Amino acid sequence: MVKARKYVVKKYFEGVPKRSDYEIVEYELPPLKVGEVLVKTEWVSVDPYLRIYHKVHQLPYDQFSNQVGIVEQSKDPNYPVGTRIVSHKGWCDYAVINTAKVEPEDYLDVKYKLPDLKGMSPSIGLGTAGMPGVSAYFAFLELCQPKAGETVVVTGAAGAVGSIVGQIAKIKGCNVIGFAGSDDKVKWLEKELGFDKAFNYKTTDIQKALKAAAPNGVDCFFDNVGGEMCSIIVGQMNRKGRVAVCGYVGSYNEELTEQPKATILHPSIVLNELRIEGFVARSWLDRWPEAIEQLITWIKNGQLKPTEHVTVGFDKIFDAFVGMLAGENAGKAVVKV
Amino acid sequence: MVKARKYVVKKYFEGVPKRSDYEIVEYELPPLKVGEVLVKTEWVSVDPYLRIYHKVHQLPYDQFSNQVGIVEQSKDPNYPVGTRIVSHKGWCDYAVINTAKVEPEDYLDVKYKLPDLKGMSPSIGLGTAGMPGVSAYFAFLELCQPKAGETVVVTGAAGAVGSIVGQIAKIKGCNVIGFAGSDDKVKWLEKELGFDKAFNYKTTDIQKALKAAAPNGVDCFFDNVGGEMCSIIVGQMNRKGRVAVCGYVGSYNEELTEQPKATILHPSIVLNELRIEGFVARSWLDRWPEAIEQLITWIKNGQLKPTEHVTVGFDKIFDAFVGMLAGENAGKAVVKV
Repeated sequence: MVKARKYVVKKYFEGVPKRSDYEIVEYELPPLKVGEVLVKTEWVSVDPYLRIYHKVHQLPYDQFSNQVGIVEQSKDPNYPVGTRIVSHKGWCDYAVINTAKVEPEDYLDVKYKLPDLKGMSPSIGLGTAGMPGVSAYFAFLELCQPKAGETVVVTGAAGAVGSIVGQIAKIKGCNVIGFAGSDDKVKWLEKELGFDKAFNYKTTDIQKALKAAAPNGVDCFFDNVGGEMCSIIVGQMNRKGRVAVCGYVGSYNEELTEQPKATILHPSIVLNELRIEGFVARSWLDRWPEAIEQLITWIKNGQLKPTEHVTVGFDKIFDAFVGMLAGENAGKAVVKV
Repeated sequence: MVKARKYVVKKYFEGVPKRSDYEIVEYELPPLKVGEVLVKTEWVSVDPYLRIYHKVHQLPYDQFSNQVGIVEQSKDPNYPVGTRIVSHKGWCDYAVINTAKVEPEDYLDVKYKLPDLKGMSPSIGLGTAGMPGVSAYFAFLELCQPKAGETVVVTGAAGAVGSIVGQIAKIKGCNVIGFAGSDDKVKWLEKELGFDKAFNYKTTDIQKALKAAAPNGVDCFFDNVGGEMCSIIVGQMNRKGRVAVCGYVGSYNEELTEQPKATILHPSIVLNELRIEGFVARSWLDRWPEAIEQLITWIKNGQLKPTEHVTVGFDKIFDAFVGMLAGENAGKAVVKV
């Protein structure tokens, strides 16, 4: 018998999630059946969608999330002991996984062998070479359709996805401007990640700063934030500009029925024939391997720096989650269990 | 010598355009040169973009607009006397047109022979078989990509474009819901134009009405209005829904720098992977003939009712313009000169 622990959500979040919305449950895992493996969690991911999708399941529910674990016992010859698996088993220290079972009720039913990361930490499989990397890759390249020489703006630029988008934009020969929430992040984006220009949106006149940094206007806008910042940036877009909407971290803690107001985008959308499109990573599941392969290649070639913000300890997962929502991380927030 | 009259804008509009922003100028037209024709205006169009683009030109400027006229004198053998021409010569009773000259400084440099309307009024060439028809055709069919059986919502449904969009949606086998600004318009949309359901947005709880009329959600949304109505409708869209933004009549009288706020669209855009795209008719000029031919065919087959709202008199053009901005028209607002 293996003793396991997991975070169970017992109360829907109101505003910022509270520790008391969760309970850590200890329980005994059942013996393995044929086709199952026992996975010991190594790394757990904390992502904005955990906040957004909190009402998808009936209470109480196990906190879903991506994680990387290593197979400790196996009744599936395709997944021998020692195999690393990326799954959506969430915030737990052990999990039993039926490798073949399709779980359509799960928001993101991923279950795949960790790709060969060529010696990098398995946590990269949750970040730059995982869902955030895949999101940056497809949302930027397919929705924004950037061309070399174009000007790209990224909000939430120091976040898991934004920090990769900016780097891919540089690989593609674009002029990249990022907005982030602290001077340290701004410095990191410019000095470490190669953004052409970055601004602390909290202390900057966004309108003026963007006008100066992008005197010829903005062609692609990768929006992770929403709100008035989005309205200002959209107002400076060029004809036939493209916007990928990947998140709205500015109001994740508000319910869907209580979202804030911001200046309407219509004049810019019409007059400049803009295209704005939303992105959900799971809709691209079939093509994840192609993106992951390219991302790993870029990392290995030194063109893409994996970005991560590590918290240590199973007990700290909740804090890492709330910290990520508050913007404490620079790069992908992961927890080493 | 031919005496002509034209409306000249001598002051940029503030809020609702005022009669005193215009001056009617009488002047003598110069004699025709080779390649020119003298056109007597028959019908003049009043459109929302005249309000939006009022600052495109230096003051004073001749009020541009689409119009249909008949050639009275000709020094171009391709346009003999009696030919009808659609041009962008605007609010005047006579104009000299150089049929070959490209005028890139003109917002919409159209200049083409009125298509064979098979006996219908030439004014249809400014409406259902003109720019508004073309806008409805391409913005709906190309941007919304409707499929038979899908649910389509149109705002500004009784306007020049909206009234055609709803009818095209019916031709394509869609379930069509319209929002308009009076009970008379609602009745007209349902009884005359075949909308499945229409609502007076001024007296209706839009959220509830739409929930009831589209219990399975909205697939395509043709937006002419913007503002909070747009936010409510977007909030009821289905996964992979498509929005064509053709106007924002809700705030045309506000300057671009003073647009109103409305609930942000981001949660719906992201979670439902919506695509929102702006439309400008002039960008499709190369393909206008294809649309006009199809629109005339539909009219002749009895599948599409041309819609127009006629004002009579050169002196009434200004009133027709302001009336259109206030939503007094049902169908395309045109003026018989």
